[in-house]
Amino acid sequence: MKIAVDAMGGDYAPGVVIEGLTQALYDFPDCEFLLVGHRDKLGFYLQKYGIAGHDRLEIVHAESVVEMSDPSAISLRAKKDSSITECARLMKAGRVEAIVSPGHTGALVAATKVLNRTLPGVDRPGLAAALPWRNGRFLLVDAGANPDCHPANLIQFALMGEIYAKFLFHSEKPTIGLLSVGGEDGKGSGLTKTVFKMLSSMPVNFIGNVESDTAFEGGCDVLVSDGFSGNVMLKTSEGLARMCGAWLKNAIRKNAVRAAGGLLARNAFTEVKALGAAETIGGAPLLGINGICIVGHGSSNPRSVRNAIRTARNAIKFDMNEKIRQRLAECHATTAELEAAFQASAEQKEQ
Amino acid sequence: MKIAVDAMGGDYAPGVVIEGLTQALYDFPDCEFLLVGHRDKLGFYLQKYGIAGHDRLEIVHAESVVEMSDPSAISLRAKKDSSITECARLMKAGRVEAIVSPGHTGALVAATKVLNRTLPGVDRPGLAAALPWRNGRFLLVDAGANPDCHPANLIQFALMGEIYAKFLFHSEKPTIGLLSVGGEDGKGSGLTKTVFKMLSSMPVNFIGNVESDTAFEGGCDVLVSDGFSGNVMLKTSEGLARMCGAWLKNAIRKNAVRAAGGLLARNAFTEVKALGAAETIGGAPLLGINGICIVGHGSSNPRSVRNAIRTARNAIKFDMNEKIRQRLAECHATTAELEAAFQASAEQKEQ
Repeated sequence: MKIAVDAMGGDYAPGVVIEGLTQALYDFPDCEFLLVGHRDKLGFYLQKYGIAGHDRLEIVHAESVVEMSDPSAISLRAKKDSSITECARLMKAGRVEAIVSPGHTGALVAATKVLNRTLPGVDRPGLAAALPWRNGRFLLVDAGANPDCHPANLIQFALMGEIYAKFLFHSEKPTIGLLSVGGEDGKGSGLTKTVFKMLSSMPVNFIGNVESDTAFEGGCDVLVSDGFSGNVMLKTSEGLARMCGAWLKNAIRKNAVRAAGGLLARNAFTEVKALGAAETIGGAPLLGINGICIVGHGSSNPRSVRNAIRTARNAIKFDMNEKIRQRLAECHATTAELEAAFQASAEQKEQ
Repeated sequence: MKIAVDAMGGDYAPGVVIEGLTQALYDFPDCEFLLVGHRDKLGFYLQKYGIAGHDRLEIVHAESVVEMSDPSAISLRAKKDSSITECARLMKAGRVEAIVSPGHTGALVAATKVLNRTLPGVDRPGLAAALPWRNGRFLLVDAGANPDCHPANLIQFALMGEIYAKFLFHSEKPTIGLLSVGGEDGKGSGLTKTVFKMLSSMPVNFIGNVESDTAFEGGCDVLVSDGFSGNVMLKTSEGLARMCGAWLKNAIRKNAVRAAGGLLARNAFTEVKALGAAETIGGAPLLGINGICIVGHGSSNPRSVRNAIRTARNAIKFDMNEKIRQRLAECHATTAELEAAFQASAEQKEQ
């Protein structure tokens, strides 16, 4: 298995990425890696972690870096020679089966959509983030790749999420929920009401509207959303978790008794922190790209880079994209029919 | 000041509402209350809390109750005699200046929109929820009244939120942020990109796009959003906070050392829990209704009912609606001009 790793992605690149890659080299002896980045900046860390000249590692030079503040389209225009674009180019050329980047999600979406194209039947790729619920995890698709969505996009997110959930949760028939503002049927926005009706007629295990708080109680395996609300949900949970941690720290430091208690219970805090942490999750696949594409967290640490690589490796082994292609082909007739029906009824309403 | 209280709203009605009202009767001697609900169901609790026949309390009978599973429009159709509808009717008749209901938000929006109408210049009312950030609170508008929004709605949410924030945070020039999926200018959905440009030209303290995680770090005083994403943000924070609490409890109970630590630090947990709890916040005003309308949390406890009443009282004292009306009138010309310009450019694009 050959995997391209974007060395320049994320807030602590390239050091953290190379440290994570070092762990992956040891842990996954069946993988070969192409490390993509500016050659002058990689040497120090390759020496530091003792993987310079490793026989399963090749260095691919990329002149520029997409910064977090850059617009998404830059990877295709002013920074065509960026590490992100080069990763997509390597996958297009068939030199790697997967790419892993903890960098700019938008730029990665733009580069892979144009260079690698989407799978047949996929209009737009969807980012699948694994979020924690009380006793496990659920998938949120789309977690931020598409701020504006049509109903058909959400149907595709549901089908792709279903396949990924099968492999991630070892579930035969994952439950599909639709993110909405009320649990009852008929509540929601214009978009979700249409999607609700379409999903009800699809051959999936659709359980209806799921509110974001219910999702954290284990409402469903796959939570389908447009990329705007999905991203709001993802970032709200990250922000609130960080804030609760900070509040707890402050409250515990207020006096000596509490501080002693905090010390005794410190392993409990560490455990809870780990449940939500990016490094235990291991990157979010961009489902629907022709080629495996794993987005790491921007504030990645070495463990999360290693785990994002593990996700890429597992997706290749599971032959995820072939299964997505099959599933979409199976449902193609139903989806097209439903789409046509809803488009017709929407046009009728306008007249 | 006269305030109508919906006795039948919320998961633990009417007991919890009447207990909260009892506290309010003692704490706010300048207020008179009209308690609206089914008379047979109120008597027991009025006796229990010793407020039957109180000289500042009048009971108004309402035959039916809007259940949480009912559709929003039911308050105007099949359940015209519900406690929610009766509250709106009392305010329409000028018998009360404010209504407080911990019940069905959608039904309250529907009833007040039709019976009380919106303030001049307001197309749709916006729910203003006060969420915690690290060192204080910020307002989220709209937190769930309007799942589908036009750009002009968000401009009105911004202006109304600004007025409420002035009074809530004692701030001269509250900062206005736009909920989006990236902090940089130009990121977002079609809707937010238009709103961004409009807010940039308005005489408000607009600080640009704010991501939901940044909001919890104190990104802005007023976070403007469509009601769908706003509701997702509100419910994600509620759900995640509950789950973190449950996780921590489980982790601490795992062994005796941790349990002892948890016991010593228990006041710290209580403190943190209180920061996010609904009862400390005190209800969300439905901004833009012609009359003060405070939505309590469905799972209200007596303290949160009392605090929602406090919010209603303060809004009357502050003359909030008159200030909103003035602010909207001030900005009317600018808003109308911007709207026309954006509509024209949208139509041009379509051609």
